[in-house]
Amino acid sequence: MVISKNMERLVAGSSTIRKLFEEGLQMAAEVGADNVYDFSLGNPASPVPHEVRDAIEDILDNTDGNIVHGYMKNAGFNDVRKAVADSLNRKNGMNYDAEDIIMTCGAAGGMNCIFRSLLGLDDEVITFAPFFGEYRSYVCNFGGNLVVVPADTETFQLNLAALRPLINEKTKCIIINNPNNPSGVVYTEETLRKLNDIIVEAEKEIGHPIYVIADEPYRELVYGGQTVPYIPNIIKNSFFLYSFSKTLSLPGERIGYMAVSKNIDYYDEVISALVVANRCLGYINAPSLFQLVVARCLDIPANLEFYDKNRTLLYEELTKMGFEVVRPDGAFYMLIKSPTPEEDDFVAMGKKYHIILVPAKSFGCPGYVRLAYCVSHDMIKRSIPAFKKLAEEYFK
Amino acid sequence: MVISKNMERLVAGSSTIRKLFEEGLQMAAEVGADNVYDFSLGNPASPVPHEVRDAIEDILDNTDGNIVHGYMKNAGFNDVRKAVADSLNRKNGMNYDAEDIIMTCGAAGGMNCIFRSLLGLDDEVITFAPFFGEYRSYVCNFGGNLVVVPADTETFQLNLAALRPLINEKTKCIIINNPNNPSGVVYTEETLRKLNDIIVEAEKEIGHPIYVIADEPYRELVYGGQTVPYIPNIIKNSFFLYSFSKTLSLPGERIGYMAVSKNIDYYDEVISALVVANRCLGYINAPSLFQLVVARCLDIPANLEFYDKNRTLLYEELTKMGFEVVRPDGAFYMLIKSPTPEEDDFVAMGKKYHIILVPAKSFGCPGYVRLAYCVSHDMIKRSIPAFKKLAEEYFK
Repeated sequence: MVISKNMERLVAGSSTIRKLFEEGLQMAAEVGADNVYDFSLGNPASPVPHEVRDAIEDILDNTDGNIVHGYMKNAGFNDVRKAVADSLNRKNGMNYDAEDIIMTCGAAGGMNCIFRSLLGLDDEVITFAPFFGEYRSYVCNFGGNLVVVPADTETFQLNLAALRPLINEKTKCIIINNPNNPSGVVYTEETLRKLNDIIVEAEKEIGHPIYVIADEPYRELVYGGQTVPYIPNIIKNSFFLYSFSKTLSLPGERIGYMAVSKNIDYYDEVISALVVANRCLGYINAPSLFQLVVARCLDIPANLEFYDKNRTLLYEELTKMGFEVVRPDGAFYMLIKSPTPEEDDFVAMGKKYHIILVPAKSFGCPGYVRLAYCVSHDMIKRSIPAFKKLAEEYFK
Repeated sequence: MVISKNMERLVAGSSTIRKLFEEGLQMAAEVGADNVYDFSLGNPASPVPHEVRDAIEDILDNTDGNIVHGYMKNAGFNDVRKAVADSLNRKNGMNYDAEDIIMTCGAAGGMNCIFRSLLGLDDEVITFAPFFGEYRSYVCNFGGNLVVVPADTETFQLNLAALRPLINEKTKCIIINNPNNPSGVVYTEETLRKLNDIIVEAEKEIGHPIYVIADEPYRELVYGGQTVPYIPNIIKNSFFLYSFSKTLSLPGERIGYMAVSKNIDYYDEVISALVVANRCLGYINAPSLFQLVVARCLDIPANLEFYDKNRTLLYEELTKMGFEVVRPDGAFYMLIKSPTPEEDDFVAMGKKYHIILVPAKSFGCPGYVRLAYCVSHDMIKRSIPAFKKLAEEYFK
């Protein structure tokens, strides 16, 4: 092998999902795309809002091309950072300045900057199952280890009872993904306040900060009038990470930001390192045109109705069929409990009816499968008879 | 300190250039922007070609927004990769398929993917002075060490005599930047063939491949009808890295690619790792709209005249004044030999006349300063009297 040891593992691990995706394409070639129900990917199907195109035209018409497409400071255009800060201040009662905002290559880019800045060899990052599987790769990129708190499969809130024993001197960060991918659950303010109590106490014992990473690309995708608590209002040592991928249906453009409150411990040191990391990881800066675009689109509401229709129909129908489904209040994912102990068998059975589901063991939650309902409503409707046949395999 | 040890060094190191940049801004505020001659940054001033805007309009008019801005395979859109492969095959007599091309977040993104894939702790990457200082950060990101072959200040070609003793079992890659930043020198086919002989022999001795990274964002910026040899035609185990930043004046958009010939040792293993690295480093994929844009702009020639005018005027005038200038045949940089032994003193003296130059010790070439002439011709003309005064400090 010429590739590095810790890359070998990632390559091996990544083949499962790639295989699923390719099987879906293969199936579509055989039985027609309309007869395949691919729920594997978080690629938003809600149309890109027209304001995005309007913003592009306006920028290209009125700003010098060498500025639009040129280098700026590694943290981003000053006026874009100012607009983001103002928007966060207005929405969440914060007190950010432009210099507290770093424009990033999506939330994933921001998280890599944090780990590049903070992790030494064998340092630990904690997250709560179920969790987005790529967290393991991001931590592993810089020699760290991801430590997983097992899921509380009663409530799917944070399993706080299991957290404290996992914190030690090597703990540098805790990732909180709210609303959660893959469960769709929203963590409540009560849960987050309890989390804060545990962290504050643990920091005293271990003698250094534990930074909470609030990874919130789905923040605005919540249903039934709920709101998602703003973590930096509850937990002092926290970074807020956002991506426009989901709300504006721009996942391919890689545009997001990180907000760092001046209240965190070692603010100066940390923010300097984050900006250098943004440069030296090769992002250099978040893509320039789309920095300018999102600054003009900060107040566009997410297309909640698009996803809510899918959520409601699927949840009702699947439950009626006999499946046990974790009730999703946010994001565009839901977890179905596998009717057989081995979820891989359930996933295989799904394929018989051209339904592509992802085994949730890759999200640290064995015994479940994840379904991404960010697809067209039409596909959801067409999939119901297939799910019925799948249900009949288990519940008769 | 809460930041990681190897980040501390990078943050400390990066302050020199940031200081220069900020001093330039400060100066401009004091004496007026027109009276400051900032030669510090490689931000291309040649206008963005109108074909870029045309391509954007065409794409937005004729392609579904959810495809334009959506996820695709981590390696990029298939048709974009095919267009890049075809173009490389046509221009350089290669035999690439679409699957050999990975669209990347600039050349810097591609290089980070290579190091993430290949480097284990304390592995070594060799480069030749003078070199782009960020290489050190990219290698350091993944626990590797950059080993620098000292400059051959006679010819500024590769100092091959000094290379062989630096190769050992830990050597994984050699970076070649052609044309070179900061010297502007073009490495000849003869030099590269000799390099190949050394590598082939060394590979036999150490028992594993040494991959050459051809970092060529300035490939099309060569003057006087010269051409730059295509390294994968000369060196079997090589990666070709390109960025559209300079040719199309799009550095802020972070768009480039990597081409990997099927001839390299361990092709399957390496290309899989590179694609996974592109995802897990948080790039996920190169920005989607600009993938589609550059695929339509592959044959747009660089605006050579824009930079050549600057090059010719500066080289002639500075030489006439008594400065010793390394003759630049490519890119948009030139090296001036410091008329005093300590180039920092020369840089400081430049500031007296509002000329911002970068000490070349950060490029591994002490005793020289770098000048980036990718600025407006008007600024070049305005700077000549200031350079004359600077020359008078040394040569009377």
